[in-house]
Amino acid sequence: MRSETIVAVTTPAGVGGIAVVRLSGTEALSIALRHLSVKELSPRKATYCHFGALDDVIAVYYPTGYTGEPTVEISCHGSLYVQQAVVETLVDAGARMAEAGEFTMRAFVNGRMDLSQAEAVADLVDAVTPAQHRLAVSQLRGGYAKVLKELRQQLLDLTSLLELEFDFSQEDVEFADRSQLSRIVDDIGSKISALRSTFHLGNALKRGIPTAIIGRPNAGKSSLLNALLADNRAIVSPIAGTTRDTIEETFNIDGVTFRLIDTAGLHHTDDLLENMGIDRAIAAAVEADIILYVHDATRPWTEAVEDLQALQDAGVKLGDKHLWVVLNKFDLPEAIEASRKLGIAVSSLKGTGLDALRELMLKAVTADVDSASQTLLTNARHYDALGRTNDALLQVAQGLKEGIPSDLLAVDLRDALYHLGTITGEVANNEVLGNIFSRFCVGK
Amino acid sequence: MRSETIVAVTTPAGVGGIAVVRLSGTEALSIALRHLSVKELSPRKATYCHFGALDDVIAVYYPTGYTGEPTVEISCHGSLYVQQAVVETLVDAGARMAEAGEFTMRAFVNGRMDLSQAEAVADLVDAVTPAQHRLAVSQLRGGYAKVLKELRQQLLDLTSLLELEFDFSQEDVEFADRSQLSRIVDDIGSKISALRSTFHLGNALKRGIPTAIIGRPNAGKSSLLNALLADNRAIVSPIAGTTRDTIEETFNIDGVTFRLIDTAGLHHTDDLLENMGIDRAIAAAVEADIILYVHDATRPWTEAVEDLQALQDAGVKLGDKHLWVVLNKFDLPEAIEASRKLGIAVSSLKGTGLDALRELMLKAVTADVDSASQTLLTNARHYDALGRTNDALLQVAQGLKEGIPSDLLAVDLRDALYHLGTITGEVANNEVLGNIFSRFCVGK
Repeated sequence: MRSETIVAVTTPAGVGGIAVVRLSGTEALSIALRHLSVKELSPRKATYCHFGALDDVIAVYYPTGYTGEPTVEISCHGSLYVQQAVVETLVDAGARMAEAGEFTMRAFVNGRMDLSQAEAVADLVDAVTPAQHRLAVSQLRGGYAKVLKELRQQLLDLTSLLELEFDFSQEDVEFADRSQLSRIVDDIGSKISALRSTFHLGNALKRGIPTAIIGRPNAGKSSLLNALLADNRAIVSPIAGTTRDTIEETFNIDGVTFRLIDTAGLHHTDDLLENMGIDRAIAAAVEADIILYVHDATRPWTEAVEDLQALQDAGVKLGDKHLWVVLNKFDLPEAIEASRKLGIAVSSLKGTGLDALRELMLKAVTADVDSASQTLLTNARHYDALGRTNDALLQVAQGLKEGIPSDLLAVDLRDALYHLGTITGEVANNEVLGNIFSRFCVGK
Repeated sequence: MRSETIVAVTTPAGVGGIAVVRLSGTEALSIALRHLSVKELSPRKATYCHFGALDDVIAVYYPTGYTGEPTVEISCHGSLYVQQAVVETLVDAGARMAEAGEFTMRAFVNGRMDLSQAEAVADLVDAVTPAQHRLAVSQLRGGYAKVLKELRQQLLDLTSLLELEFDFSQEDVEFADRSQLSRIVDDIGSKISALRSTFHLGNALKRGIPTAIIGRPNAGKSSLLNALLADNRAIVSPIAGTTRDTIEETFNIDGVTFRLIDTAGLHHTDDLLENMGIDRAIAAAVEADIILYVHDATRPWTEAVEDLQALQDAGVKLGDKHLWVVLNKFDLPEAIEASRKLGIAVSSLKGTGLDALRELMLKAVTADVDSASQTLLTNARHYDALGRTNDALLQVAQGLKEGIPSDLLAVDLRDALYHLGTITGEVANNEVLGNIFSRFCVGK
């Protein structure tokens, strides 16, 4: 199959020692050779040559490159001028500027990877922390695709059984044992549900584990936030809070990103604005995976008990969260020694106890990852597609119970197969592909 | 000779499809192989493999790379995480982070290029316009080094002649014909002066041809500036003027950069501040290669004549400049038709005549480049070193005239050789090298 030859700088935008220009398509080699000072490029051989009068370059020809088609990669000097001039010269010679994600889209179209792997490439390129990187690599290497393939096969087998029955339906024979079919449908459904349930954690690992800092005014919430951030400024980016009342900051512990959300102090007040702030604090606690309840160690323990009860009453499912009571100001002489056993004693001021807290936070996440299946769902599109697959399966299960004819059941099964297929791209339309690959940078 | 193995990302900083990490030094191959999933790398063969559990990469081994020593280049995914992790892993494996310009410094130290070529690499990477790029390429390809080599050889020959005489000086014999020696010294001196005289143009091409816009208040100087810039915003960067009275903007015509300097209106005034502005306008005209004298075409021609005379009287050597009278407002009915033959009629408002003006400006520069020797001096350090070489030669010439003994003449000659040698790095000290290579980016 012939393909248009596309070209783009594939290294980061900007000035550097060298930059790499990638040409991909049927004519990649002949277009490149029009401007290189050599007559041929041996496959995969790094060849030093001139690119016209423009630059000294190293060119490598891949008969089947990343895109699954003939590819030439030209390493040139990394000035803005050279990068632009090399691309423009190749465009004049017959190539077309590649669009965002077009190299990877071709890799997908040419069967070098499925759609979920192609999406993992974008995640891989965006990865800043080791956890994000690991998630993307695991998706790229296809462990996830294998799970989907098995599910697909089970659905196909089920469809075959039903269609067999349908072929003989004139004879009023029921081949498949319907209660057995129901069990198979339930089995697939629960596998999909299990996979979907990893999305929360997968997404949290990708974007940062939501961690709410809750407590009374002046308990030391903001100091705790600052103390936790202080030594961990490796990657800290302020995120504009939804209101002045919640402040979000992200920080890393051993490569896992946490989104720390500092909230308004919990207390009884008639002030409308303050109560709005408290409502937001509760909302943050509802969303959080980790709650750090900050307690002023010089104050009676009953305050903490009251607050946690109030949070539970307000709809925060404390049992589903990692919750630690952080006993702040434990360095003060007035600190109530008796509360020591009830929480983690820290001093934001002196920096004591913070390492223990960080270790607990990290261990909690690691335990969650370990207890989840090997495969973590990180992509919202996949989460949605699995949801639609499950909806269709529920229709099948319902139909089986109600004794609906197999030809109608098959319609719902095909629907389930369709939605499952959108994840890996067995079925894909241009709009979906356009949406997915426009997320990419040009040159990938 | 063994060398420490250094490592850095050599592609631009930031996120991209791929990034290239370069390892250079005696242990480059063995350090790389510690983490690659292959046992060997064939020279210059692009090899697909895993880099630990981290990434899928393409590795190329050059027994003698850019640096003149064993080099491995690893193309990895272009995420911030992968780039950092690959470099860190290689550092843990025994490499050291490369310093700014260290790869190129090694290329110089290992005799792959002389110092003037190494400096050209930095210019090449910084090049934004075709003219800047051409200058850097010509210097990198060594045309310039050839001229210097010839000069050096002539100086060496001269030294030999003098030293021969010195060896026999006991016998009171004068081997060399002193007047002939004088002619040789003068010849070398005038070659160096010719080369030095290209610095002004070379530097102007590199930084932008200084172009002063001069004229009376309200003649339309600022409108001309804006009109010239309007269609040429390809690369326009505002440069903070030295005062509020001069505004500098750079723009390109066919890849040649011009620095347009808008000045205060020339007129007779007793206002101290205004006169300071006029002084600066005159200073800009003195420095400029091109003067655009803007004349209001509805005003008598005599005004232009008076102003140009005044500029000449104030020390602006009009004969050395490219000077055009730009007749602005030629679209107005009051425009004096008779002045048409005296300048270039433009209307900044309607945009007419601007193309003709741009063409004249470009042609003037092109003509200057053509009439200059092939080699243009662009580097201030070289300009300075050639000056010192010439100073030493003047001492030699003086000494020859005054009949100074050949051993004393030889001291000055060696001085000339020393300064000439600093350009290409035949003689170089660490401080000079440090200054030069700290200009580079890390990874080059």
